[in-house]
Amino acid sequence: MSRRFDASPVIFFLSDYGLDDEFVGVVHAVLHRWAPQVPVIDLAHGVPPYDVASGAAMLERCAPVLTTGVVLAVVDPGVGTDRLGVAVGLSRPGGPTWLVGPDNGLLVPLADALGGASSVLVLERPDDLGTQAGSTFDGRDLFAPAAARLVWGDPPGELGAAAPVDSLVRLPVHHGTGGPSVEVRWVDRFGNVELDLDGSGLDELGLALGEWAEVTVVGPTGAVTTARGRRVAAFGDLASGELGILVDSAGRAALVVDRDSAAHLLGLGGSEAIRLVARRMDPAST
Amino acid sequence: MSRRFDASPVIFFLSDYGLDDEFVGVVHAVLHRWAPQVPVIDLAHGVPPYDVASGAAMLERCAPVLTTGVVLAVVDPGVGTDRLGVAVGLSRPGGPTWLVGPDNGLLVPLADALGGASSVLVLERPDDLGTQAGSTFDGRDLFAPAAARLVWGDPPGELGAAAPVDSLVRLPVHHGTGGPSVEVRWVDRFGNVELDLDGSGLDELGLALGEWAEVTVVGPTGAVTTARGRRVAAFGDLASGELGILVDSAGRAALVVDRDSAAHLLGLGGSEAIRLVARRMDPAST
Amino acid sequence: MSRRFDASPVIFFLSDYGLDDEFVGVVHAVLHRWAPQVPVIDLAHGVPPYDVASGAAMLERCAPVLTTGVVLAVVDPGVGTDRLGVAVGLSRPGGPTWLVGPDNGLLVPLADALGGASSVLVLERPDDLGTQAGSTFDGRDLFAPAAARLVWGDPPGELGAAAPVDSLVRLPVHHGTGGPSVEVRWVDRFGNVELDLDGSGLDELGLALGEWAEVTVVGPTGAVTTARGRRVAAFGDLASGELGILVDSAGRAALVVDRDSAAHLLGLGGSEAIRLVARRMDPAST
Repeated sequence: MSRRFDASPVIFFLSDYGLDDEFVGVVHAVLHRWAPQVPVIDLAHGVPPYDVASGAAMLERCAPVLTTGVVLAVVDPGVGTDRLGVAVGLSRPGGPTWLVGPDNGLLVPLADALGGASSVLVLERPDDLGTQAGSTFDGRDLFAPAAARLVWGDPPGELGAAAPVDSLVRLPVHHGTGGPSVEVRWVDRFGNVELDLDGSGLDELGLALGEWAEVTVVGPTGAVTTARGRRVAAFGDLASGELGILVDSAGRAALVVDRDSAAHLLGLGGSEAIRLVARRMDPAST
Repeated sequence: MSRRFDASPVIFFLSDYGLDDEFVGVVHAVLHRWAPQVPVIDLAHGVPPYDVASGAAMLERCAPVLTTGVVLAVVDPGVGTDRLGVAVGLSRPGGPTWLVGPDNGLLVPLADALGGASSVLVLERPDDLGTQAGSTFDGRDLFAPAAARLVWGDPPGELGAAAPVDSLVRLPVHHGTGGPSVEVRWVDRFGNVELDLDGSGLDELGLALGEWAEVTVVGPTGAVTTARGRRVAAFGDLASGELGILVDSAGRAALVVDRDSAAHLLGLGGSEAIRLVARRMDPAST
Repeated sequence: MSRRFDASPVIFFLSDYGLDDEFVGVVHAVLHRWAPQVPVIDLAHGVPPYDVASGAAMLERCAPVLTTGVVLAVVDPGVGTDRLGVAVGLSRPGGPTWLVGPDNGLLVPLADALGGASSVLVLERPDDLGTQAGSTFDGRDLFAPAAARLVWGDPPGELGAAAPVDSLVRLPVHHGTGGPSVEVRWVDRFGNVELDLDGSGLDELGLALGEWAEVTVVGPTGAVTTARGRRVAAFGDLASGELGILVDSAGRAALVVDRDSAAHLLGLGGSEAIRLVARRMDPAST
């Protein structure tokens, strides 16, 4: 995917606004006002409300396909508090040049995936807002104008003051309890269960292609579900109803069932924090 | 937000079509056919089916961010009846010039918010439709072509005949029962409950910043829920789980809980017609 | 709708990805990379997961409004198997020139509606993918680049080898059991129930305008629901709560209730395979 790298700048937009209300549409209208000819690509707006970690993971998964432009991301449980609004500067050629959103950890995993932050602006609140409007919609009032002005080429210094890169708020890192135990990162629409483990991690667990694993799901209440899964290269290698372990489109290990939902098979309800213990086993033993 | 007011014209699109079916996509395709280079900004398509009043309120909340162009809005329980299709002309500089949709009250609150209607066209049904198509999809067959032709600059007289501005159908106005009682206008994705009351209305009730109120929710069946709320300036002023009353991003009073759902706290199911009685109270009395 | 037929080419995009995850946004980003100035029109992404027949029906309903460009459609339960990816060439002037997606029958009804396939390309997998990515997201890795390159004007021969038109996989055809029995094709957001029958089919059943029918719904378990319906020209011809039969916006017979849900009235849960038996009856007999 190396061609046409001279793509014109765009605004990539992700939020937890959902699509039932008019929040997303209002932000689009503001972006159009400030950057009239710039296309806007909606990455997703279905981040669970207030779920900064899910939003950050979603942004990180989008990293490989992002081209020149600005990323606007709003998952902002701290709106109306003293949390800062920031623009994170990046310098890798061919990718986004700014990530705009709240300083709550949302933007950092994407910045790291794109070569790391090279600068930070602390956004100043525009002073030409209507006086009647409350302070509950920074996507409209603070972040969208900043993203649009940056993609339009306004001088960054007009938007706020520089801050040290290491002042950015980072999400807490979850450390596993050791051993072959991993966390669920994402359950997608099809019921595929992405784990916090990449393909080489599967290898380290002794799970080469064709090997079997005992998959143990420990729910938040301690309830345990066990199933047997086989590492495969693709959905098509699985029998009907068989649990598979494969490297998914983000390069991570995922529990899957061909044309069916692995989350349903394993009794996973959503994105709750659970744990999975993989163990090499002999297929004949079951 | 006064810069770049020379934004190129766009089509703003709102409906109750939802996003599961192809209705919205089909209308986009028709808009592209009739106005190929004109961007379309989706305001929202999650208006509850047939709910003209909710659609009208949503449009009205969008008013401050709309720029030059045409608004296409379709919440149309009367499709296939003798209700008229209209284009409402506006004349405030920098804003939309036409609002296109059914003549059922949907467009009037937005028109009023944008300076008032200055003209009305009654749309004639295009006569080059396929003869097989039924009369159930005026968004595709009547409103989208009209909106696209108006934004493209076709002479309005080609689309229909002028009608008096005061012939427009208006939604019934809900009058409160008097006293400090207000209606719920909107429950958003986050569970914030917007009331039919602006910030000065809160002041008139004696609810200055920091004051407390007894919030009484009377459901459709007469069931009563009571809670205590405090007027604050922002989410960040609230303790965890505390009910707050603040001026929201549309300038209206809203019941909120920081990082949680006020609708859930108060047992509100959705947008049902309920009433709220605010009363100044002494915090020490509880 | 014959004007402005010189519309610039666009990409029409339909999938079963839903809008909660970032799949649709990622595909948009890839399309932008390969065809930067080409608008993308989302037809729908709410096809039920893996439901190729529903996706094919949805595409077919869109046929009349599609202009010049490329259709990208992904409902792909066989991703990661040896099913082929194809581009189906069309030659009707003014319509799409290529349909891109999996060779599982999804594209064929639309191709037939647009004059029939005139050529087929079997898509070769791009070899410049990152080595870490798994084979689960052909929308991103195979179909989007192909659609973008075709709309951009790259030589088709660069994308794959030609194959015979009659090699395309076709969906199984459902044959009725004979007599006046039809299948449900679609239940839309409003609860309108579209049948696999066009307006002339209603005439053949003896159901002219104003005639009555006994509508019998036989559920998957054999349970039977019976109601009386009247053929009308438009929603507005129905009394409140009355079941109607009309020709819908796709030219097909549909069971409807004015401003209410016919699916709810008849106890239909969704798109399950059911049957309907229409029989001319005397309104006085009930």
